Amino acid sequence: MEKQLKELKSHLMEAYDLGRAGAVLGWDEMTYMPPGGAAARARQSALLARLTHEKSIDPAIGKLLDELRPYEESLPYDSDNASLIRVTRREYERAIKVPPQFMAELYEHISKSYNAWVTARPENNYKALEPLLERTVDLCRQLADFFPGYEHCADPLIDFNDYGMKATTLRSLFAHLRRELIPIVQAITSQPPADDACLKLHYPKADQLDFSMEVVKQLGYDLNRGRQDLTHHPFTTSFSLGDVRITTRVNEDFLGDCLFSSIHEAGHAMYEQGIRMEFEGTPLAGGTSAGVHESQSRTWENLVGRSRSFWEFFYPKLQAKFPDQLKGISLDTFYQAVNKVQRSLIRTEADEVTYNLHIMIRFDIELALLEGNLLVRDLPEYWHVRYNADMGMRAPDDRDGVMQDVHWFGGLVGGSFQGYTLGNIIGAQFFTHALAAHPEIPNEMSQGKFETLHKWLIDNVYQHGSKFTATELIEKVTGGPLSIEPYLTYLRSKYGELYKL
Amino acid sequence: MEKQLKELKSHLMEAYDLGRAGAVLGWDEMTYMPPGGAAARARQSALLARLTHEKSIDPAIGKLLDELRPYEESLPYDSDNASLIRVTRREYERAIKVPPQFMAELYEHISKSYNAWVTARPENNYKALEPLLERTVDLCRQLADFFPGYEHCADPLIDFNDYGMKATTLRSLFAHLRRELIPIVQAITSQPPADDACLKLHYPKADQLDFSMEVVKQLGYDLNRGRQDLTHHPFTTSFSLGDVRITTRVNEDFLGDCLFSSIHEAGHAMYEQGIRMEFEGTPLAGGTSAGVHESQSRTWENLVGRSRSFWEFFYPKLQAKFPDQLKGISLDTFYQAVNKVQRSLIRTEADEVTYNLHIMIRFDIELALLEGNLLVRDLPEYWHVRYNADMGMRAPDDRDGVMQDVHWFGGLVGGSFQGYTLGNIIGAQFFTHALAAHPEIPNEMSQGKFETLHKWLIDNVYQHGSKFTATELIEKVTGGPLSIEPYLTYLRSKYGELYKL
Repeated sequence: MEKQLKELKSHLMEAYDLGRAGAVLGWDEMTYMPPGGAAARARQSALLARLTHEKSIDPAIGKLLDELRPYEESLPYDSDNASLIRVTRREYERAIKVPPQFMAELYEHISKSYNAWVTARPENNYKALEPLLERTVDLCRQLADFFPGYEHCADPLIDFNDYGMKATTLRSLFAHLRRELIPIVQAITSQPPADDACLKLHYPKADQLDFSMEVVKQLGYDLNRGRQDLTHHPFTTSFSLGDVRITTRVNEDFLGDCLFSSIHEAGHAMYEQGIRMEFEGTPLAGGTSAGVHESQSRTWENLVGRSRSFWEFFYPKLQAKFPDQLKGISLDTFYQAVNKVQRSLIRTEADEVTYNLHIMIRFDIELALLEGNLLVRDLPEYWHVRYNADMGMRAPDDRDGVMQDVHWFGGLVGGSFQGYTLGNIIGAQFFTHALAAHPEIPNEMSQGKFETLHKWLIDNVYQHGSKFTATELIEKVTGGPLSIEPYLTYLRSKYGELYKL
Repeated sequence: MEKQLKELKSHLMEAYDLGRAGAVLGWDEMTYMPPGGAAARARQSALLARLTHEKSIDPAIGKLLDELRPYEESLPYDSDNASLIRVTRREYERAIKVPPQFMAELYEHISKSYNAWVTARPENNYKALEPLLERTVDLCRQLADFFPGYEHCADPLIDFNDYGMKATTLRSLFAHLRRELIPIVQAITSQPPADDACLKLHYPKADQLDFSMEVVKQLGYDLNRGRQDLTHHPFTTSFSLGDVRITTRVNEDFLGDCLFSSIHEAGHAMYEQGIRMEFEGTPLAGGTSAGVHESQSRTWENLVGRSRSFWEFFYPKLQAKFPDQLKGISLDTFYQAVNKVQRSLIRTEADEVTYNLHIMIRFDIELALLEGNLLVRDLPEYWHVRYNADMGMRAPDDRDGVMQDVHWFGGLVGGSFQGYTLGNIIGAQFFTHALAAHPEIPNEMSQGKFETLHKWLIDNVYQHGSKFTATELIEKVTGGPLSIEPYLTYLRSKYGELYKL
């Protein structure tokens, strides 16, 4: 079986390399590409997507997988080789259902749509995006239809990112979480609001970038295998296990945007950097699901980056970097400012407590768009109505309304958002177990030491890449299924203390 | 024939797009890639090179070219379609001689070798590069051997970059030029040297970059379809006719490096940006030869950027940017400084007169390495001996000796350098004709207006892309063959005045 396995790996490596070459083109498009490059880039991305897909569905892979079945069955389930064959088969069987030409069309459309969003958002011009978004919804429905037998049209799309999850499961999980969150939000927002004026001063771009780099380096993001660049909407991308890059953006009049975006993306990147190098070039060389990926970005951003321990170490450094802006602002005031809970309009700036309400709005909208119960042309107004109902606020325009997030304009409608809330839930589950194993972690963090936590996450989560499904991994790490309790316990404890509930 | 032509274009577009995707990977490797990305990038570049080559030699292209022959013969030679078919056939017939697997090996090796050079050069560690360069020479000989019947082993390699040129032709051309240049160099260097102390002060990086951007924009480099980034060894790269990028580097203790590199690369880029958009995605969408390409980089760098007219406009702006460094330095002194002629060690910093002597050294070495008359292990010492003979100087180390140029370490040995000297020659031929047609050009330049020259170059040279060979283009523009006379006339006139010969 040595020969077949080697042959399989060589096929997989080519698909991987073509996909990652496509990622380089995507990264460049979103960081450095001049406007004139857009048309050809859409074509080139589409071509690479098609070729990657063609490689992934090469019948030779199917044949090798068949030949390797007895070998796979002779191995322990969690051995590297059994896992490689199993995960490859799962992805192969999914991939062969989608024609390469469709993938090319989809990617070409996405690239066009993304570039239109870059221009249209600052101009508050939703009309320019409307036909593009209509086509995206249409393409997403077509994509779902390659997987007949679904319960909800979004299910196949959700399954791409969070394997095994369904719209109905998520609807009931989110409803449950919502019932628990609303009283917490109400209790907090009936208190006087925290004073976050210190975050809203002028913080020069270069200094913000410097500080964010200093922080992510200290957390453990390896710059020998990564780098940070500027973009419109921060993301992480991996070109290989040796090159996992993050992006950020800077608002000079708000300190939180760049720093927490950088930490968030560094969380994603540390997950990818922690994968075992032996998995390079295979389907195991990536995070296992959107939910587990977000669990790590949200862990580093919030459970670490918005903790008191973290700021005990970093606040004096931040004050030294911005002495004028932070003169006379105590650690307590600053800690309360970065944890201010409030109903708000912008997802990426939302606090830990209300964040999921933003996600639920988007999740419901995705399902309604796919069902046809909401039309693309009615979306901006529906957005405002829904924000008014859930948050008691209305955005002044579509720029900070429906156009604020890149997802639907630079990717798919359906399956794009549930991962964030799953991430909040899973992140708290894992973090609770890390703290139980190493109660010294908070104290270490207050001294700028993050190795114990980082190493625990590598050992228990990161190293496995996609070897286990999210469900398997959660079972393996916590001994039980997905549960919202650790997350709620965390929120009640932290915000109970902060807001003296 | 409409159908076949459309089909041909669609094949060519895929090869083009794969090649340009590979260029994006190469650009990233040389500008932003962290060290950890090198191994996978070598593999990915090799894969794209192989796939590009496979697409280029698709037998379907050969079949279409056969079917299109009667159509081609029915069209005027210089019609777009006849030219497309003719140039495609020439490239196809060359490409089918090289196996795709060889191309993949070559590119993988080049990527490894480039990354080794990035590390080894600052460490002055030629030993680390020796085995890699030996393999490069070996691969270049193998590449030449796919084209049996050559007169000199370098001929097929020269032909890649300067179609129709041969080692013997170049040897005699260079010998002729050398005979004319040496007395000029001797006459100048027997004068007191120009005072270039003003260039060797501290010029902060950010200000140098700002100024270089201001200059290239003014010259006509379109930033809507381009951008400038930092690298180790400046280059221009094209991802499409809508995205042609330049790179530069900064020496904070020498003003000339960044500025003249930027202008040089902008010259290459303006050539590519000037190609007719209808040629996008075809073999016509690129400069026609290394020599013609260098003619344009050298024209903008030297004939324009080192002219008195140019500095009449830009010197006051430069002084405003660097008031401390240039206080009390007259335009005359500055103009003499940027045109200081001296025997020197570094090619990229050499003046217009001695520049070709650097090229001739490299050209001779390339031939000797390929012939086997010079061994890679003897190269560093031979370099010193040769510089001593030709320049009367010996580099203090290999860093500024044989390792100074990226070409042999990030590309081929053979055919890499003749283009620069051909460029100096051709550039002067074209420029002389532009001046004859528009005697107002120097006066316009002194007012910061470069449109007349730029437009003449677009109309007469750039727009054609690769439609005509270098020989055809020179004939078309000048009415005669390649000639060193305009170049010598230019040098004698400019330097005669500068050094009062």
